[in-house]
Amino acid sequence: MQNMTEAQLTDVVLQRYQDTPDPRLREILQSLIRHLHAFVRDVKLTEDEWLRGILYLTSVGQISDDKRQEMILLSDNLGISMLVNMVSARVAHAATESTVVGPFYVPGSPERQWGESIQQMPCDDPPLFVTGRVLDLDGAPVAGAQIELWQTNSNGMYDIQDPEQPEHNLRGWYRVNDAGEFLVQTVRPVRYPIPTDGPVGELLQATKRHPWRPAHLHVKITAPGCKPLVTHIFDAEDPYLDSDVVFAVKQSLVRRFEPVAAGERRREYGIGGPCLELRYDFTIERVTPAG
Amino acid sequence: MQNMTEAQLTDVVLQRYQDTPDPRLREILQSLIRHLHAFVRDVKLTEDEWLRGILYLTSVGQISDDKRQEMILLSDNLGISMLVNMVSARVAHAATESTVVGPFYVPGSPERQWGESIQQMPCDDPPLFVTGRVLDLDGAPVAGAQIELWQTNSNGMYDIQDPEQPEHNLRGWYRVNDAGEFLVQTVRPVRYPIPTDGPVGELLQATKRHPWRPAHLHVKITAPGCKPLVTHIFDAEDPYLDSDVVFAVKQSLVRRFEPVAAGERRREYGIGGPCLELRYDFTIERVTPAG
Ligand SMILES: [Fe+2]
Ligand SMILES: [Fe+2]
Repeated sequence: MQNMTEAQLTDVVLQRYQDTPDPRLREILQSLIRHLHAFVRDVKLTEDEWLRGILYLTSVGQISDDKRQEMILLSDNLGISMLVNMVSARVAHAATESTVVGPFYVPGSPERQWGESIQQMPCDDPPLFVTGRVLDLDGAPVAGAQIELWQTNSNGMYDIQDPEQPEHNLRGWYRVNDAGEFLVQTVRPVRYPIPTDGPVGELLQATKRHPWRPAHLHVKITAPGCKPLVTHIFDAEDPYLDSDVVFAVKQSLVRRFEPVAAGERRREYGIGGPCLELRYDFTIERVTPAG
Repeated sequence: MQNMTEAQLTDVVLQRYQDTPDPRLREILQSLIRHLHAFVRDVKLTEDEWLRGILYLTSVGQISDDKRQEMILLSDNLGISMLVNMVSARVAHAATESTVVGPFYVPGSPERQWGESIQQMPCDDPPLFVTGRVLDLDGAPVAGAQIELWQTNSNGMYDIQDPEQPEHNLRGWYRVNDAGEFLVQTVRPVRYPIPTDGPVGELLQATKRHPWRPAHLHVKITAPGCKPLVTHIFDAEDPYLDSDVVFAVKQSLVRRFEPVAAGERRREYGIGGPCLELRYDFTIERVTPAG
């Protein structure tokens, strides 16, 4: 047999992945191998350091379950999720920009009726109404669209992190009407620290990084024949917009929540007291032409 | 706030890790971020592909427990473990070469007496005696050394994979005598497929790679004041020496297990029937001078 030198190893490994039938999988794996090997060579990783890394990654998987996704959180914290979002971004510049999905999305949230609140707990905060339309790139309403939202409670925790909250609190999806319009009721989102009680918390501590995400609503819009949109609405008044721990802020996604003066609009919203509103049209991209 | 472009993102992320107090951790994390970002850019990873990767890595962590270490197996399969071994290899070229530890090492295996067998089950295979010395770079015996071995049973499974085997079967460690000599009794190792019932098995299948490791004994040698050595002894007659699934073969570690002719040596080993032997001196490196 032939002895393999360090210089040859990477080529030997790449060669062994050459028979991968799916060309895209082959491309991804060979690129990953090339870059991870370059990393090991660059820092001359020792076996002790390698083992710490292995055990760290293992623990990130092990703490994850149906309510917690620490691997996404790790990816978010290394800027990988945001980079993936950027390199695979839609070509259509006129569409609403996307950002990371984050670790707290839960499929199967309940449908909410026109103007119904996703805040399912007694709450002193004034309601926030988000209203607008879902449009295509031609400015035509997307009648079949669904707009889904999720956010933390005022304690900074998502329902799945917080036994005090009922299931699906501050989650839900709305159908738009034939004019593409929606009326969402919620409360103003708050900034929150990402979970620091697991491996990603260790990383934050070891790297002296703060854990804060600026206040945001998560939004996902889907419609038949359209590219799904996953994005955030960020609160323009948040002090962490410039240092989001997961690097997810885009300028075009920052909005002001405006107080609604007493009168007509409050009556429209069916509200007696103070409330906030955001008028926001989302633009999504058709994949198949409108029927 | 400033909008961040794709081109700026990597620098922004690196900058945020700049305050890491431990310089080595900072170096490792920043290099890892740089290389992982380059990978994402190279293949223009899509969000669907990213999510598949995230869920894959999560499952690698989740299937791991105190008896199974799938993350090491994954690292082994990508050639990363072997590369780490090569780049962090000892400077002393006269020392016995090391190779990967693999996912099946278990700390706390029992001490075995001079010539005692680590095969704890009834077995038709002829015994294999491994005998020799542990020496330092000057050729002097290392009197305090311990030599630890682990291997699969003839069914290709380690004790921790196989409920039929007693705990610590085919594992154990021996003290050398004052002349640095040891006498290990075991059976000839067999080639075996790495576990294919988990995420790494999926990877093998998707990449059309065979799962075989050439027959080997794992050896770990420790001694006070010496650099630990983790290595394998490979069987020279194995057909998979050139295509070890985890890339761990080094030419200097390949040996022939020789039949022992009837007579003197069999009597020395306390054996009536056929047996095999390997005479092998290990050379390890002192970190502190011999006392
Ligand atoms: Fe969030
Ligand atoms: Fe092994």
